This record gives sequence, C-alpha cells and structure tokens, in this order.
Amino acid sequence: MAQNIYDKPDFFAGYSRLGRSVRGLEGAPEWPTLRAMLPTMRGLRVLDLGCGFGWFCRWAREAGASSVLGLDLSDKMLARARAETADQAIGYAIADLEHLSLPDGSFDLAYSSLAFHYVEDAARLFASIQRALVPGGRLVFSTEHPVYMAPTKPGWTVTDDGRKSWPVDRYFVEGPRTTDWLSPGVVKHHRTIGTTLNLLIEARFRIDRVVEFCPSAAQIAQAPALAEEIERPMFLLVAAQR
Amino acid sequence: MAQNIYDKPDFFAGYSRLGRSVRGLEGAPEWPTLRAMLPTMRGLRVLDLGCGFGWFCRWAREAGASSVLGLDLSDKMLARARAETADQAIGYAIADLEHLSLPDGSFDLAYSSLAFHYVEDAARLFASIQRALVPGGRLVFSTEHPVYMAPTKPGWTVTDDGRKSWPVDRYFVEGPRTTDWLSPGVVKHHRTIGTTLNLLIEARFRIDRVVEFCPSAAQIAQAPALAEEIERPMFLLVAAQR
Repeated sequence: MAQNIYDKPDFFAGYSRLGRSVRGLEGAPEWPTLRAMLPTMRGLRVLDLGCGFGWFCRWAREAGASSVLGLDLSDKMLARARAETADQAIGYAIADLEHLSLPDGSFDLAYSSLAFHYVEDAARLFASIQRALVPGGRLVFSTEHPVYMAPTKPGWTVTDDGRKSWPVDRYFVEGPRTTDWLSPGVVKHHRTIGTTLNLLIEARFRIDRVVEFCPSAAQIAQAPALAEEIERPMFLLVAAQR
Repeated sequence: MAQNIYDKPDFFAGYSRLGRSVRGLEGAPEWPTLRAMLPTMRGLRVLDLGCGFGWFCRWAREAGASSVLGLDLSDKMLARARAETADQAIGYAIADLEHLSLPDGSFDLAYSSLAFHYVEDAARLFASIQRALVPGGRLVFSTEHPVYMAPTKPGWTVTDDGRKSWPVDRYFVEGPRTTDWLSPGVVKHHRTIGTTLNLLIEARFRIDRVVEFCPSAAQIAQAPALAEEIERPMFLLVAAQR
C-alpha cells in the first residue's frame, strides 16, 4: 500500500494550511496551466485520482461534468471533501492508487493533481487508468518534476554572487526519495521524464501535451516568491489520450 | 543562418579528435540506445540532418536503406564524408537546418544526431521535416538535454563530502547559450523538454519514445568516466512518427 502521509496529524495540519488547501484551485499556481490542458467538461464522467478536499471534483461539476468520482487514500481528506460537497453527482471513495480497481470504460476523463509521485508502480497505475477510460478518453495530470525530486539534497544552492541553482544529482537513480515536507519521512518515487512518458505510451496513451510548469510574469508580479520557479522545473504536467 | 562552428579550424581539429569522430558511431556512448529507437532500415529512404563525417549514412546503407541523403552546414565535414564514402546511393549536400528546403513526402526516416540544439527555430525545422516525410515516416533524433544546457555555469559542482551535482538554473529562460566547447563562443539554443515535445506534436508528429540517455552498467565498467552521467541527463533522444 502507498504511504498514507496525509492522515498523519502533523502532515494533515500542515497541508491544511497551504494556499492550495485554503484557497482551493486558485491557490495552486499551476492550476491555470493544468486547466488549459483539460477538455471541455460538459457531459464528461470524471475520475479524480488523489482528490484531497474535493476542490477539483466540485469545479468539474460546475464546469459541466455529468458525474465525478473522487478517490483518495486519506480518510481525513475525504471526510472534509464530503462535508464541503452538496452534490449528488459527486462521489468520494477511499482508494490506493497502487491498487486501483475500477470498472472498464467508465470514465471520459481521469485527472490527478500531484499524487502520482507517491505511487511506486506507475506502469500498473497507467494500465488501470487506461482500462477505466473509454476509447478517446483523456488523462490529464500533474506530478512533481524529476529534476525537482532527484537530488540528494533538494534545496537551493546560493553562490557567492547570489545566484540560485538547483543541485541535480542521482537523476538516473530511479526509486524512492524520502524528504521532510510538512512531516518527516515523506516517501516519493522518482522517475525520469522519459520513464513517465514511455510508460504512458506503453499503456497505449497518445501524448498530447507535456508542460514543465513555470509561473507567468503576471503570477510572479503578484507573488514575487514564485520568481525562483524560473530556475528549475518543479511540476510536470501531461495531457494524454487513450 | 545557423552558426557554422564546425568549419572553424580549432573547432574542426578538436571535433576530429573526439571518440565519435575517430571511432564513428561506436565511439558515441548513446549510439546503441539511439539505434534501438530506429525502425528496420531495409528499403528506407533516409535523411540525415547534420551528417558530419557520414558515419550514420554509411551505417544506414549497410543496414539496408535504399538511399541516404546526408545534409550538413560544414564544407569540411562533407569533404571528408565524401572522401570516405564509395556508394552511389549515398549523397551529401550543404544545408542549413534553419532553412531546410526538401521535396515533399520523399523520405521514410529522418535522423539527426546532436545537431538540433544548434537550430534556433525548431518549429520551422519540425514542420520542414514533417513535410519531407511520407505519412507514417519516422523522425529519430538526439539533442543536448535542456538540463545539461540550461545553466549559467554548465559544469559540475563538487561539495565538501565529494558529491558531484549539476547546478541547474535558468531552465525556463529559453534561447541562446554560449559556451566554450572545443572553440570559444559556440552558440546553442536552449528549449525545455516540454517545448521540444509540444513543437513536435504541433507539427503533427506522434511521440513514440522519449529517452534521457544514461550509459549502461556495462558501458560504465568499460569507461568509468561515464559514471558521472548517472547524476544528470546530457542527451535527449526522441522517436516520433508522422
């Protein structure tokens, strides 16, 4: 089973205070970019893998989706998602992305925000999603970028002249990375971009768009701390079609 | 016009001494990986963009290609390519990859090794290649990896405990990078992976395989200096289909 870090009290408390938890989708700088990669939502049966508090599920319904199923490993997150959702066409269920079990051909869109990097077996995950989609169905997801995740010491190096750089090493050493983010001992699974894309292709997805997220000039003007995101990629966004 | 660094005497002399120039394809550690991404060569009309000394052109013919056209910007390289080729089905011509002019639908495979990073306008390049290929034709190429090319100071940082890392910055600042490699003032053009792949998709290519090159354990055992290639990606290899 995947590590359920979200149900740890310290992690949950920290996560609940993040901009993206307090302000929802609009609190995530990569959301406008990811949204632009989504198909028109009207009439779609939508699956949200790692739905957290259900922000995207509710947005999808407001945008016209006919039904939304949100899956998450965290009891606590689903409890809050349910409490904040008053829509019979949105359902929530506990599920481990390592062992998805979904009815064949039952979704038009599978979406996931920053959950796949917790999954060890991406080949099995992509195959499960492929079967759960109808032919022509879409998969749109964000995940931590491997350049961000690879290093032994994932943090900025500042040189004497004040330049910030990101010390990439172990890029080709795929596998677990343990970091202290909100809580000690958070385990993520590092895969190169090549591995992620080839696993999608091998699962019979067509790659439609690959975006390494960088905030816009307008976003940086509004939140100057985002400027450092120009130096190295933090998130990888992919749109694919079954 | 693209910078013709190869015809500078110091660059040409240095380039001619590289393993890949002396030993040909077998002197390039990424060649076995790139070769595995190629289709069966029998009967194919092949285009080699940035053919250099013609090693790949001759290999392609030996592997069964029906004809090969090698293009390069460098007079000197083509002169040596012609001198080393005795095969009427291989032709060589001067061409600037910034301004390709090729007959429509006349090739089954376009190949390029480490030339595209000298090209400023990749959208135009990919569109030209797309038109030159038959429907179903393949494009297989290697280029410098953007993680390798992006940094202000593209060189290893060694920490006190002896760890080597690659100081990534300016990843999202696309455009020229001037380095001193064999000769001062070599100009390359930095594009993110996302940009390269999306330009291919927009030029109506289907992405078939994306490999960030890492030498095998056997290659490292034979040439221990290659071990550092595990730390960060140096080459990006892509196979796509029209």
